[in-house]
Amino acid sequence: MHSFKDLSVLFSKHFEKSHFPSSPHNLYEPCNYFLQIGGKRVRPTLCLLGNELFDTIHIDSYHIATAIELFHNFTLVHDDMMDAASLRRGMQTVHTKYNSNIALLSGDVMLIKAYEYINKIQPQYLQRILQLFNTTATEVCEGQQLDMDFENQDEVSLNEYIKMIELKTSVLLAAALQMGAIIGGASEGNCNHLYQFGLNLGIAFQIQDDYLDAFGDPEKFGKEVGGDIKQNKKTFLLLHSLEVASAEQRKRLHELMKDNPSNKVEEVLKIYTECNVQEWTKNLKQKYFDTALQHLEDIAVVSSRKKPLLELAYYLIDREH
Amino acid sequence: MHSFKDLSVLFSKHFEKSHFPSSPHNLYEPCNYFLQIGGKRVRPTLCLLGNELFDTIHIDSYHIATAIELFHNFTLVHDDMMDAASLRRGMQTVHTKYNSNIALLSGDVMLIKAYEYINKIQPQYLQRILQLFNTTATEVCEGQQLDMDFENQDEVSLNEYIKMIELKTSVLLAAALQMGAIIGGASEGNCNHLYQFGLNLGIAFQIQDDYLDAFGDPEKFGKEVGGDIKQNKKTFLLLHSLEVASAEQRKRLHELMKDNPSNKVEEVLKIYTECNVQEWTKNLKQKYFDTALQHLEDIAVVSSRKKPLLELAYYLIDREH
Repeated sequence: MHSFKDLSVLFSKHFEKSHFPSSPHNLYEPCNYFLQIGGKRVRPTLCLLGNELFDTIHIDSYHIATAIELFHNFTLVHDDMMDAASLRRGMQTVHTKYNSNIALLSGDVMLIKAYEYINKIQPQYLQRILQLFNTTATEVCEGQQLDMDFENQDEVSLNEYIKMIELKTSVLLAAALQMGAIIGGASEGNCNHLYQFGLNLGIAFQIQDDYLDAFGDPEKFGKEVGGDIKQNKKTFLLLHSLEVASAEQRKRLHELMKDNPSNKVEEVLKIYTECNVQEWTKNLKQKYFDTALQHLEDIAVVSSRKKPLLELAYYLIDREH
Repeated sequence: MHSFKDLSVLFSKHFEKSHFPSSPHNLYEPCNYFLQIGGKRVRPTLCLLGNELFDTIHIDSYHIATAIELFHNFTLVHDDMMDAASLRRGMQTVHTKYNSNIALLSGDVMLIKAYEYINKIQPQYLQRILQLFNTTATEVCEGQQLDMDFENQDEVSLNEYIKMIELKTSVLLAAALQMGAIIGGASEGNCNHLYQFGLNLGIAFQIQDDYLDAFGDPEKFGKEVGGDIKQNKKTFLLLHSLEVASAEQRKRLHELMKDNPSNKVEEVLKIYTECNVQEWTKNLKQKYFDTALQHLEDIAVVSSRKKPLLELAYYLIDREH
């Protein structure tokens, strides 16, 4: 049994090679550039953890984990284009460093490469893994579309927002765990519980991420606090406030979002506090976290095998940064 | 046994339905819009022909044919973005009718949908078909990258150009035939001959397309003649002329490409004629066409089964439009 950190290191070593030929240079060099920017490799590591929950890690899980990480990076390259983001992890995004055409095509070929890795696994699991991979990939695209739709939409309900987060972020975490479990020979019931664990943990994590962006300690959070507020980003906090605010508070919120005064962050936070957003957010996060833990509990394997996932869950959710 | 035309009609009927759910509307409506623009559905029909060369058509060939047509349309949506093309078949391209973000994401989800159709086939063929599909998809991306590279490259050799055409256009025709053949139970030798038939026919077709763009009868060709010349597009004709031209002719060609005078098409055609490009092109086309026919000949099935492919080859290559 390995901890999340152990497996993350193992995967990173495995992943650290060029996945592409050298030519055409303008197609593949941008892929290599982007992949070496790095990241925590959370999703592929979840795949290995999902496997090891049930059995020793099979090489197929490394193939799938590689596919998942390539898929994730494909979405980042294309999302950065859609968001016109110039930096990621302090490095230039692909369309900024090269150009939009190169980012478009390099992203495409990264997605196809993901399917090449999927096709390396044992034939007996191929159809099942490919189906889950396809469904998940489609859902991630749907989530990205909803996220863009919401930007231009006046009214977004909390449920719509949760659905978007689920599609854009959580399903990939859940599917990564489940694919590992499939390779580990898990029963369908256990697979489903593990999927639900990932799905709910992902939503809890996003609730916390929204919370920390507003109320986090800037030093621990590692990025500017209030960024979402400045951009009028629809978050758990904003959507809930708009739902529970008085007519007067709602009017002030809309004015602040429209006028962008210099004290905007401070003023919006004041309204959030008046609306009791902090407590509400903590409770909502706890609700999803508890649901996640219950599903982990319900998986029919000895509890000692669950330790790495339990530790990861607490690590992700208790973080202040 | 069916003719190309019969199978093209059968496939079009099979394909004519929505392949996507209704929501999110902004993701899937553009996919439906683009697919109903239509086309000759050449590639999926080749898949059915490849199957029927060896056996009665299996439903798997329809699944693969659908995947191939979705893949082809994904490349068109993204290529149109890269080429900043506003029209296709007289209709607005996706990024023009909607916007670039929508075209990007709708293209992505169309590619993923192609893999969903691949995953519908019998498990025994899945790994082999998926491998050919992945390889081909990657090659098409490489061809598109080379095509873009060549635009900004002063010197392109004829062999480099042929390689680009092979990747960008021919491999998908060849793979479509071969995937059908695999489902038809063809031997590896027969599969390879059929692939080479498609590959060489594709190159012959592109040589002819370049030729007709310069020397075709405008009424029969259906589009403006001389378009490639006006855009300084690197074609078989231009690359060959630059190779065989005298220093004086080469100088005139470069001046015409740089200065774009009103009589540019006429003057370039004059140099092409001086360089004997017409005869050279016809011979080169014939060379690839003969190679294609030889591979068809070498396939070990009774010749009566080859009739539809033979008819198609002559139809594609003898066309004046």
